[in-house]
Amino acid sequence: MEKITRFGVSIEPDLLEKFDSMMKKKGYSNRSEAIRDMIREHLIIEHVKDPCAEVIGTLTMVYDHHAGPLVDRLLQIQHDHYQEILTTTHIHIDHNTCLEVLVLRGETQNIQTLADSIKAIKGIKHGELVVTQRSL
Amino acid sequence: MEKITRFGVSIEPDLLEKFDSMMKKKGYSNRSEAIRDMIREHLIIEHVKDPCAEVIGTLTMVYDHHAGPLVDRLLQIQHDHYQEILTTTHIHIDHNTCLEVLVLRGETQNIQTLADSIKAIKGIKHGELVVTQRSL
Amino acid sequence: MEKITRFGVSIEPDLLEKFDSMMKKKGYSNRSEAIRDMIREHLIIEHVKDPCAEVIGTLTMVYDHHAGPLVDRLLQIQHDHYQEILTTTHIHIDHNTCLEVLVLRGETQNIQTLADSIKAIKGIKHGELVVTQRSL
Amino acid sequence: MEKITRFGVSIEPDLLEKFDSMMKKKGYSNRSEAIRDMIREHLIIEHVKDPCAEVIGTLTMVYDHHAGPLVDRLLQIQHDHYQEILTTTHIHIDHNTCLEVLVLRGETQNIQTLADSIKAIKGIKHGELVVTQRSL
Repeated sequence: MEKITRFGVSIEPDLLEKFDSMMKKKGYSNRSEAIRDMIREHLIIEHVKDPCAEVIGTLTMVYDHHAGPLVDRLLQIQHDHYQEILTTTHIHIDHNTCLEVLVLRGETQNIQTLADSIKAIKGIKHGELVVTQRSL
Repeated sequence: MEKITRFGVSIEPDLLEKFDSMMKKKGYSNRSEAIRDMIREHLIIEHVKDPCAEVIGTLTMVYDHHAGPLVDRLLQIQHDHYQEILTTTHIHIDHNTCLEVLVLRGETQNIQTLADSIKAIKGIKHGELVVTQRSL
Repeated sequence: MEKITRFGVSIEPDLLEKFDSMMKKKGYSNRSEAIRDMIREHLIIEHVKDPCAEVIGTLTMVYDHHAGPLVDRLLQIQHDHYQEILTTTHIHIDHNTCLEVLVLRGETQNIQTLADSIKAIKGIKHGELVVTQRSL
Repeated sequence: MEKITRFGVSIEPDLLEKFDSMMKKKGYSNRSEAIRDMIREHLIIEHVKDPCAEVIGTLTMVYDHHAGPLVDRLLQIQHDHYQEILTTTHIHIDHNTCLEVLVLRGETQNIQTLADSIKAIKGIKHGELVVTQRSL
């Protein structure tokens, strides 16, 4: 079991009230949990600024699978980077549109470059990368 | 086949030069493709501001599967929202850490609320939502 | 004097350690202050999502004052919105380049529209809006 | 007078239509101007990622001038960094609340550190930094 420590926060009563109300709106039942999540979020934002940090990323992309040699290009680039791509999830959104989510692992800068080069493929209509940390 | 139209852009030569160099760095071989991607990105940002827009989302989250009743809570909430959750991908990052990616579909505001309530579960260490459009 | 209340946060020791180290890096000498600032930041992000919220904004823009009728357009649009523009600061960055910062006050949606219409003026090279809350 | 060059963009008609409609909504009367602004925005985002880039920043902050030694601390830190702070604009928002906007100039990393240390002062309720480029 993990050990738990405690610290106290002094705060203006009306700021605490607003925090409690936002917390509830977001579905938290526990102040400590909400504070810990805010802390983790800030740590991640700082961490992933370092281009050499080891991170996990997910690249979400939308494309039309009829778009010429797109699927071949995509497969090739994914195989060239098989060590950084942990898995691929593919959803058939409608007759033409595919959603694909890649889970990536590596240094921030490599993950970013890989995501950029995939997003640049002709036919990829939108791509967005989320980067997070493995251990928090 | 899709029909293609053309329009001209007038631009200062040194701005174009900088654009070409950024484009190359990002892996684009074609100016039109880079411009189209920028346009789509801006359209998506505008579109998803509308709380009633129909969108696709991916929620990336990191958690420790040992964390008490987390896995049960997560399963339950996912079943309660089976109509909005298209698929779930689970990666075993290390002995303790799980990465899970949910693909969501629905109105922006519902997707946002669902993501918030999942992120608020005790034990979810980080959650980040990407929202995109189905057709672009 | 403002009244102060206190609450306790339970947290894993290594997460607290990382938080303390980030806090120090950012120049905080006091945990409560860092936590309060995180809370306020999150409240502001939620608050300004409401298009009818009363907010304060600053629009930072860069332009070349030689760019034809730009200065006239800018003056005119500012006078048309004198009730929303509290003040303008102008810096001569170099021989050609101006930096101008407008402080705006009004509903989020109006501030946003005003900022968009200024950014769209031919010759404005970059414009970025920050929106914050009056009372926190 | 600046020299102007031209290039053509090939695009799907319905994507162009959506772009024209967003452009109009944002107040642009000219497609080239809208495209140039998107290009500049992307270049700035890339540029300011470099910690050693020379940038211009504006720090917007909200505080209560009654908050103990805040005003002294703020003045001292500003004088310690007089070479990076080009100007300060102060607005009396209401009886208690001040809005202050600093225009900063220097390397991204120094500007960021200075902004962090100001935001960390007890009594600063919110601070947000916008970073832009001098020449575009």
